[in-house]
Amino acid sequence: MDKKDTFFNATDVRWMAGDVEHGDIVMSTRIRLARNLKDYRFPRAFSEDEAFKLDQTISNVLLDAETLDQHFTHIDIATTPILQKKVLVEKHLISPQLAHKDRSASVVISDDESVSVMINEEDHLRIQCIEPGLDLEKAYFNADTLDRYLEEYVPYAFDEEFGYLTSCPTNTGTGMRASVMMHLPALTMTDQMEQIISMMPRLGMVVRGIYGEGTEAVGNYYQISNQVTLGKSEEEILTDLQSLAEQIVQRETESRKALLDHAETIMNDRVNRSLGTLHYARILTSDEAANCLSNVRLGIDLGLIENIPTKVLNKCMLVIQPGFLQQYVGTTLKPNERDVYRATLLREILNNVRQREKGDDSYDV
Amino acid sequence: MDKKDTFFNATDVRWMAGDVEHGDIVMSTRIRLARNLKDYRFPRAFSEDEAFKLDQTISNVLLDAETLDQHFTHIDIATTPILQKKVLVEKHLISPQLAHKDRSASVVISDDESVSVMINEEDHLRIQCIEPGLDLEKAYFNADTLDRYLEEYVPYAFDEEFGYLTSCPTNTGTGMRASVMMHLPALTMTDQMEQIISMMPRLGMVVRGIYGEGTEAVGNYYQISNQVTLGKSEEEILTDLQSLAEQIVQRETESRKALLDHAETIMNDRVNRSLGTLHYARILTSDEAANCLSNVRLGIDLGLIENIPTKVLNKCMLVIQPGFLQQYVGTTLKPNERDVYRATLLREILNNVRQREKGDDSYDV
Repeated sequence: MDKKDTFFNATDVRWMAGDVEHGDIVMSTRIRLARNLKDYRFPRAFSEDEAFKLDQTISNVLLDAETLDQHFTHIDIATTPILQKKVLVEKHLISPQLAHKDRSASVVISDDESVSVMINEEDHLRIQCIEPGLDLEKAYFNADTLDRYLEEYVPYAFDEEFGYLTSCPTNTGTGMRASVMMHLPALTMTDQMEQIISMMPRLGMVVRGIYGEGTEAVGNYYQISNQVTLGKSEEEILTDLQSLAEQIVQRETESRKALLDHAETIMNDRVNRSLGTLHYARILTSDEAANCLSNVRLGIDLGLIENIPTKVLNKCMLVIQPGFLQQYVGTTLKPNERDVYRATLLREILNNVRQREKGDDSYDV
Repeated sequence: MDKKDTFFNATDVRWMAGDVEHGDIVMSTRIRLARNLKDYRFPRAFSEDEAFKLDQTISNVLLDAETLDQHFTHIDIATTPILQKKVLVEKHLISPQLAHKDRSASVVISDDESVSVMINEEDHLRIQCIEPGLDLEKAYFNADTLDRYLEEYVPYAFDEEFGYLTSCPTNTGTGMRASVMMHLPALTMTDQMEQIISMMPRLGMVVRGIYGEGTEAVGNYYQISNQVTLGKSEEEILTDLQSLAEQIVQRETESRKALLDHAETIMNDRVNRSLGTLHYARILTSDEAANCLSNVRLGIDLGLIENIPTKVLNKCMLVIQPGFLQQYVGTTLKPNERDVYRATLLREILNNVRQREKGDDSYDV
């Protein structure tokens, strides 16, 4: 398979691995650095020629990289079909904004999908490094290494007083957004999320849904990230977010234990009904599917559901999304057709698990 | 097993057989005759001595019956434990009113449970004959045969002008209530039941839920019976009810076809989700269980669900009821305990079907 096809089709994503520290609650950690080159105007203002030249310059630096431990692939946005761009968005490899660009814009992705560099999005460069579980240190180390490497070849727009200059002033300073994706079903069920979200601004943090800015928390997934990029060092931001994530992990853990201690039958009923819906429904919206998968994940974490590998759940989480679903079926589908196909696909995946569990290896998970 | 124990435990009831005319829509047909003896005061007014004597007289006539093709068992109400009385009510062998009697009252039941005679309920005698499917002719023939037989030994209170005299004037005349129990999920889903129910009084008919007077239609089961007993002959009542039942069967059949033609996926989703709930829920109220079973029955009738025998569904319908459930577990349970036990029992029964389907005969349906 061509490497590009892997990005568009593979569901076995490294950062969804899960068997890492706090992997049952923190799905992934992400570091994003916004950078702009000194000798170019910002994307909002520059010409098509500048955009093209910049895209070529940066991607060549990355593709030729020999000192980095990674191999990269360049994907041009304008020539990528819309369905495949949707898949890249759903895999968090590019932003929805980049997907909509109609002139020289691209993404450079490492083979294991842990690094992606968007070129000519809101800023010239958006370096993204993602790691499974709670691992700000490693994600930052990877981003920082790549950042230093790039800076050797392409001088950045940097101001002694303000730090890295960006298109949007909210990113100026460190240009860094550090985020953790958390699965918080127990805090959601026990109505504690509102209180947690309300304390975020005081901590300079912000909570979003799984698909970034402006989207609601579907399936009890919350993305927590720093709001402030100016006046705080990278180290301070990482320390604060680490501390906050650990506190939330602890509260979620306590809530799960309390639910299990005081309402085990109700929890057992809830998570198994969701599993039943995934096994039996013939029509499933992406929201309902996400919520059922969230309950099943909780059921596995609580020991109430057995024999469903995390890998399978992660695959399900990806394939319920519209882009992936249509990429799978190989054609565009209307929303109601998607709901039927989504239900069919989930039934197939879960039945394959059941068959495999019974020792029949002819089925592919 | 003692014959009485069979009545309290058996779930394989002949009148739930189902493989009869219109058996997919009409569950059963029932004829009830109210009779009083000439030489006794009505139950509302008579003494304990009279009640006792009457109970003995009638039950002896039935137990000694040699000309009838049936063998009967006498069950005294006052000495029957409450749980077992609940089961008899749930099997429609006695009325809730009889179950609450604290003096000489009894029921005489035929071995196949198709005939039951309540003694000293509201009237001295309530003869009930039940048949599977739509079969007013046979049910009436059986009731009439037993009625004529009894009249030879115990003279009835009969008035040339009014007909059979009863405790409640609404039964005076023929003393007959003919009823059919119908499963009408398609008419319910398409909001046609209200209109059907509203036309009943003009036809001298009435619609009730599955558990008789004053109960709501649970699980889309409706009991349709004649309201009028005076001024109409038995034959007229039977002809009118037969005609009405056939019309409703036709409308239900048309609605099912329309649902399948125009909304097959939605129906498939609905009936399978219900099957999923029965397979996976850990807490099930009797109402939810009845509604899920109704959907599964519809799914079987429409060919959307396979491999669940009607016999198993009928068993499920019986065991979800509080009395049966507690009789099964052998002890009284609080309502929330019943909901958990109900879910467990249904999962077991349905899993046994699945095992058996796979050729493993060690499981008992």
